[in-house]
Amino acid sequence: MQHQERYIWPHKDLLDVTQLSKADVMHLLDLAGQFHEINQRPVKKVPTLKGRTVVLFFAEPSTRTKTSFDMAGKRLSADTFSLAKSGSSLVKGESLKDTALTLQAMSPDVIVIRHTSSGAAQFLAERLDCAIVNGGDGWHAHPTQALLDSFSLNRAWKGQFEGKTVLILGDIAHSRVARSNVHLLTKLGAKVRLCAPRTLLPAGVHTWPAEIYDNLKKAVQGVDAVMALRLQLERQQAGLLPDLREYANRYCLGLDHLKEAAADVKVLHPGPMNRGVEISSALADAPQSLVLDQVASGVATRMAILFLHATRKDEGDR
Amino acid sequence: MQHQERYIWPHKDLLDVTQLSKADVMHLLDLAGQFHEINQRPVKKVPTLKGRTVVLFFAEPSTRTKTSFDMAGKRLSADTFSLAKSGSSLVKGESLKDTALTLQAMSPDVIVIRHTSSGAAQFLAERLDCAIVNGGDGWHAHPTQALLDSFSLNRAWKGQFEGKTVLILGDIAHSRVARSNVHLLTKLGAKVRLCAPRTLLPAGVHTWPAEIYDNLKKAVQGVDAVMALRLQLERQQAGLLPDLREYANRYCLGLDHLKEAAADVKVLHPGPMNRGVEISSALADAPQSLVLDQVASGVATRMAILFLHATRKDEGDR
Amino acid sequence: MQHQERYIWPHKDLLDVTQLSKADVMHLLDLAGQFHEINQRPVKKVPTLKGRTVVLFFAEPSTRTKTSFDMAGKRLSADTFSLAKSGSSLVKGESLKDTALTLQAMSPDVIVIRHTSSGAAQFLAERLDCAIVNGGDGWHAHPTQALLDSFSLNRAWKGQFEGKTVLILGDIAHSRVARSNVHLLTKLGAKVRLCAPRTLLPAGVHTWPAEIYDNLKKAVQGVDAVMALRLQLERQQAGLLPDLREYANRYCLGLDHLKEAAADVKVLHPGPMNRGVEISSALADAPQSLVLDQVASGVATRMAILFLHATRKDEGDR
Repeated sequence: MQHQERYIWPHKDLLDVTQLSKADVMHLLDLAGQFHEINQRPVKKVPTLKGRTVVLFFAEPSTRTKTSFDMAGKRLSADTFSLAKSGSSLVKGESLKDTALTLQAMSPDVIVIRHTSSGAAQFLAERLDCAIVNGGDGWHAHPTQALLDSFSLNRAWKGQFEGKTVLILGDIAHSRVARSNVHLLTKLGAKVRLCAPRTLLPAGVHTWPAEIYDNLKKAVQGVDAVMALRLQLERQQAGLLPDLREYANRYCLGLDHLKEAAADVKVLHPGPMNRGVEISSALADAPQSLVLDQVASGVATRMAILFLHATRKDEGDR
Repeated sequence: MQHQERYIWPHKDLLDVTQLSKADVMHLLDLAGQFHEINQRPVKKVPTLKGRTVVLFFAEPSTRTKTSFDMAGKRLSADTFSLAKSGSSLVKGESLKDTALTLQAMSPDVIVIRHTSSGAAQFLAERLDCAIVNGGDGWHAHPTQALLDSFSLNRAWKGQFEGKTVLILGDIAHSRVARSNVHLLTKLGAKVRLCAPRTLLPAGVHTWPAEIYDNLKKAVQGVDAVMALRLQLERQQAGLLPDLREYANRYCLGLDHLKEAAADVKVLHPGPMNRGVEISSALADAPQSLVLDQVASGVATRMAILFLHATRKDEGDR
Repeated sequence: MQHQERYIWPHKDLLDVTQLSKADVMHLLDLAGQFHEINQRPVKKVPTLKGRTVVLFFAEPSTRTKTSFDMAGKRLSADTFSLAKSGSSLVKGESLKDTALTLQAMSPDVIVIRHTSSGAAQFLAERLDCAIVNGGDGWHAHPTQALLDSFSLNRAWKGQFEGKTVLILGDIAHSRVARSNVHLLTKLGAKVRLCAPRTLLPAGVHTWPAEIYDNLKKAVQGVDAVMALRLQLERQQAGLLPDLREYANRYCLGLDHLKEAAADVKVLHPGPMNRGVEISSALADAPQSLVLDQVASGVATRMAILFLHATRKDEGDR
């Protein structure tokens, strides 16, 4: 990758999208666009991060996200190392701090961390010299998912977020994806609506920069995109949902709903989908669906994220 | 690898050996021979598949086969990614179709799939643009095992399958290895015999192009090779075997049996062996045994398979 | 890595430090020093082992040691392959011998084995042509840990082990780390003391080249380094420890103890630490602590070990 003008990336870590300026985001999405092109070639690899070390520390299982980062790293020629929590003597009997310091001693350039505790990524970022990328922490933030969602929408909308309205639908309360997307979409100029049953809205949601709906038919009117969230089916057992069929009747996004939306409405879902619960099977496979585009966007966006954070310290050398 | 004349590989996928012509097989075995040589060098690597992506999707555990494919991919300089079913959020709550489409969105060149369901590889092949290699599906087919077995025999027999007789011994009913080998060996010109207790013969076996025996001493007379199959020890609990000792008494291949076979008889086993059940320990380590040769053949044969399927689309570029 | 004069490494395998001459160790530590420098660079990679195959066969879980070897291999450009025992069909129903022969048939250059059985590495070394590196076997030996400990001390002491005294503290009886360190430190010219409750001293310890203490305050007097061992907390259940708090009262190394030691005393721990049991939290983070330096040393030392054993056969080519 040759860059005529180098954008000085100002962040050691990627903890949340709140830390990014609009210019940061646009630069990152532009760079991701270049990597997206590379991913369509037969030879999907650039030597950019050769000899760099990327550690994927996933204390919460996620094959989907981990594989996406792993591909991103390897397509940049970095060496990647996966650590899982289960059965890990690195972690067993060891505090997160000691694990982190141990990892740092192995001289990684980037550590991607996914953790069940909100704030785990920040905890590491404060203690380690290397770049920390938040791969999802508790219910707090999932910045790389929000960035890839915006990458998909940016391509669909040719860079125009102003005047667009995005509806986020489903379990907002327990969704780091929703939190990060509300921030990022608003920053990029879009308006955000939220639609969920009251039991799945977080405390304090009325202070969020978003309109709240509990009726899906009303919520979808005129929107340019709908982002359906994954419903953790365990929520029902926790008493937050009366009945899954009842939930699907009211909140499962179908082709019919889209008649009220903008003509070229796009539909997103972070995956994996519960077809028939959050989204109808017909819609999941319809042309409006960006679901698979999001997966491809994920690899490209994470390539840009790893590149920017792994090479930030090189500035002095140039 | 430089090829003077390029053989146009006519198959997007490798689902079963039945789809291959004899010319296809001979080209593949010839190419595997070149890779086999590379594997004996200190530097066991060629840049052929640099920047290509090979996904190893093993929904049924198999360290042996997965490692063989992983080595094959890396020795061709491909990037390899292993996905296991267990604990995989890629798969959890997701249909095989959605998992497959998600994988495809990450732009792999080849997906190797092992699955407990017969037909899983075909299911993927019909839905995805990338090459699908069947790493074993249910009781249906295991084409890469059959091809590596033939690679071993091809080297031992200097390319001469005509006039040779191969005995396949053991649990034919539940063996994808047996099914694929009967097809492939017959295609290459060898004759096939099957020997098993009746409870371990599949329905309809009498329509197979093979002679059926239940007496091992008779079955082995004059054969040029014996392929002992792995016995899943769970079969006994299912009532298909009266007693393991009784089974071993009648069907465990030993050195004595080979006195009735051809002078330079070869013995194969796909591994891992239950010594003393399917094959005597003395025979497993005897010069007639090709068991370890099969393992080495596996890496070389899979290199050829990955190469042919990953580069098939390059034709237009040449 | 260019070497003006090639040291002829005389060992096919690294089974224990007892087999190494002092010259071997000093050469290895010197080479590790060169790799340690490379690990501080932005591009932490040399092409030295390109096309070589390193298998990490960890029949006993250890993310820490496995990751260290994995990084060491990849930073030398080797291809690395991890095999775990659990769920491995390579191993299931297969003897260690058959697993080993199967691995060898895949043409690895080095197999690193960690195993619960003392002697497992030697068993493989006697049967396989490729290099075997003992990554820890039972209570027997852990040569790479001892070598990295000496690498850390060698840097701290500028190569001077003569006249130094090292105290090894804790569960000596069940520690392969202790066994290998007693041998190696003595070989390099240091004196060794051991301090543990009697129930955690091995039978025959009085024949070891070490002074035995059960009082930590006395043991620490004048020493130049203290190596605290990890206490397997299961030992208490086994009746070897009356009470964890009582143990910590008597044997947990703290800052106060070091007042009796040499002025520039160093503290080591193989990790992961049980803070407050083997070592106080304040001391673990104090300037005297080499704990994180040991982790970095581990990658560099294992790079040297892999390099020496993977290239030993190349001698004829040069």
